[in-house]
Amino acid sequence: MGKKGSLMSVRHDIKVFDATLRDGGLVNNFGFSDEFVKDLYEANVNAGVDYMEFGYKADCDMFAKSDFGKWKFTDEEDLRAIVGNNDTDLKISVMADVGRTNLKRDILPKSESVIDMVRVATYINTIPAAINMAEYCHELGYETTINIMAISNASEGDLRQALELISESNVQAVYIVDSYGAVYPERMREIADLYVEHTEAAGKLTGIHAHNNQQLAFANTIEALSRGASYLDATVSSLGRGAGNCPIELLLAFLQNPKYNVVSILRFIEKHIPKLKADGLVWGYDIQYLLTGRFNQHPSSAIEFTKNKRSDYTRFYSELLDKE
Amino acid sequence: MGKKGSLMSVRHDIKVFDATLRDGGLVNNFGFSDEFVKDLYEANVNAGVDYMEFGYKADCDMFAKSDFGKWKFTDEEDLRAIVGNNDTDLKISVMADVGRTNLKRDILPKSESVIDMVRVATYINTIPAAINMAEYCHELGYETTINIMAISNASEGDLRQALELISESNVQAVYIVDSYGAVYPERMREIADLYVEHTEAAGKLTGIHAHNNQQLAFANTIEALSRGASYLDATVSSLGRGAGNCPIELLLAFLQNPKYNVVSILRFIEKHIPKLKADGLVWGYDIQYLLTGRFNQHPSSAIEFTKNKRSDYTRFYSELLDKE
Repeated sequence: MGKKGSLMSVRHDIKVFDATLRDGGLVNNFGFSDEFVKDLYEANVNAGVDYMEFGYKADCDMFAKSDFGKWKFTDEEDLRAIVGNNDTDLKISVMADVGRTNLKRDILPKSESVIDMVRVATYINTIPAAINMAEYCHELGYETTINIMAISNASEGDLRQALELISESNVQAVYIVDSYGAVYPERMREIADLYVEHTEAAGKLTGIHAHNNQQLAFANTIEALSRGASYLDATVSSLGRGAGNCPIELLLAFLQNPKYNVVSILRFIEKHIPKLKADGLVWGYDIQYLLTGRFNQHPSSAIEFTKNKRSDYTRFYSELLDKE
Repeated sequence: MGKKGSLMSVRHDIKVFDATLRDGGLVNNFGFSDEFVKDLYEANVNAGVDYMEFGYKADCDMFAKSDFGKWKFTDEEDLRAIVGNNDTDLKISVMADVGRTNLKRDILPKSESVIDMVRVATYINTIPAAINMAEYCHELGYETTINIMAISNASEGDLRQALELISESNVQAVYIVDSYGAVYPERMREIADLYVEHTEAAGKLTGIHAHNNQQLAFANTIEALSRGASYLDATVSSLGRGAGNCPIELLLAFLQNPKYNVVSILRFIEKHIPKLKADGLVWGYDIQYLLTGRFNQHPSSAIEFTKNKRSDYTRFYSELLDKE
């Protein structure tokens, strides 16, 4: 494996993937206004973004519909209320978590849905279940990916085995997911090389979904890209769980393909992001996320720290040490 | 040139350099309280930081003392009021800008000063003047560096010539300064290789001073480090002009040498940073800095945009296009 392209070149395998609603929904319980969602959809269409993930396909027997906004479930009629028949070049995605979905009940045949892609999110120890789910969706006519979460906790051996199993499936891409924001660029390049070695051999693509705990989400995304990753997850203004994601405005400004245009995203930010912040929504890089990232821990304790409006970082540091 | 060390190794050539007061002084006109400065000094000593830059040696004939805080001038008695004789392992630095200093009047012989290092900041077209200044300070007994600003605007040929000239001088380090936050990690590695090739041959070291316009200050710092850069500039909470700098808390948490300890910096942040923000000081990554960085322009227009509390990013984008 080696470097793919240069800072000047256009790589036609690249797909910019907007995950604002799905990952951002973890910040506000999916409580986005229809205007926000509609404007984001239009901004993405105009920006040349390739995929937009609207939300999860969560099992309503496990999660009460009254406890969440509609994009936790992403029902077909709610989608169509925003996109109609989606007569655009923007493809629509939903995410299905291993162990939290009822695909047989909740996924329609592709011919009856405006959804284009189902992404299956899994930890490394549930890869066989993830492959089953992806194959089921593939049979129904969807594009599929498998997204391996908490990659910083996966051993090289397990990861190779996972990539070999997935290579035999029909998924079109396999994602590196740095859920904890724990991976440094030097290590990210090694992980990307391992992925690309397997996905290229199997005629598939590699994806990258980074978190910003150590201000490395954008850097890790473009480093994985430079090693051959094609599917690039990003969110508007970094909106996403905890420290947030790779900001889509940085990514679009970076990419050389003239089909991408950051201006419609800037306009969306102008209109919507100050309001979200004024309403009290808090996300993005802060010391507590740096610390869980550095300790390679799930961000849940940092999210709790944030919710409780704490700023006693040294005490939080000791609490994390106790969990090691 | 190649990769130096790994994510696990300790590199004893590394020097962590705190530039909080000097670069942060550009945000608040050097208006730091003595308590802030004293606490920062102690936090740096306890964190194992190698150098602390207190401020500029600006010419008081060009800049009225009444218009700035004392760290614009960094007089010996002001320094001693904070550090006494500085009986610690932390070295003390000041910065001298080409064309804005009166060294003959303002720099004492080293035997009369607690300052250890004078860093000369220059654009690529004033390298001979910078070398003169550095040699003058070297003669007086100081450690010296030359910091080449706006590196993203320097041609490869000019840069090679500059590095060759500096190689013949007595400076101990030459800095890459990404003043505009315009450099991507891939390019940063190339620049670092060029520097290290020259500095190693001359028995000198390479330094890196990054800005965070594109959320790449930390990434670029550790990428330059991985290619052999030794002097690593950083500031507490990224405090610095415009989008700010590489956060020292990220850098200290990253480094493997057990002499570094992030906890005293976390304690300093807890005590002082919320207050600076509550007092209305604004710095750090935002869309306007992304845009000047991407356009490879000086951040001054983005700083103005910030001061005017504007958020019309699309209009600002057009304004920048007009300046190209």
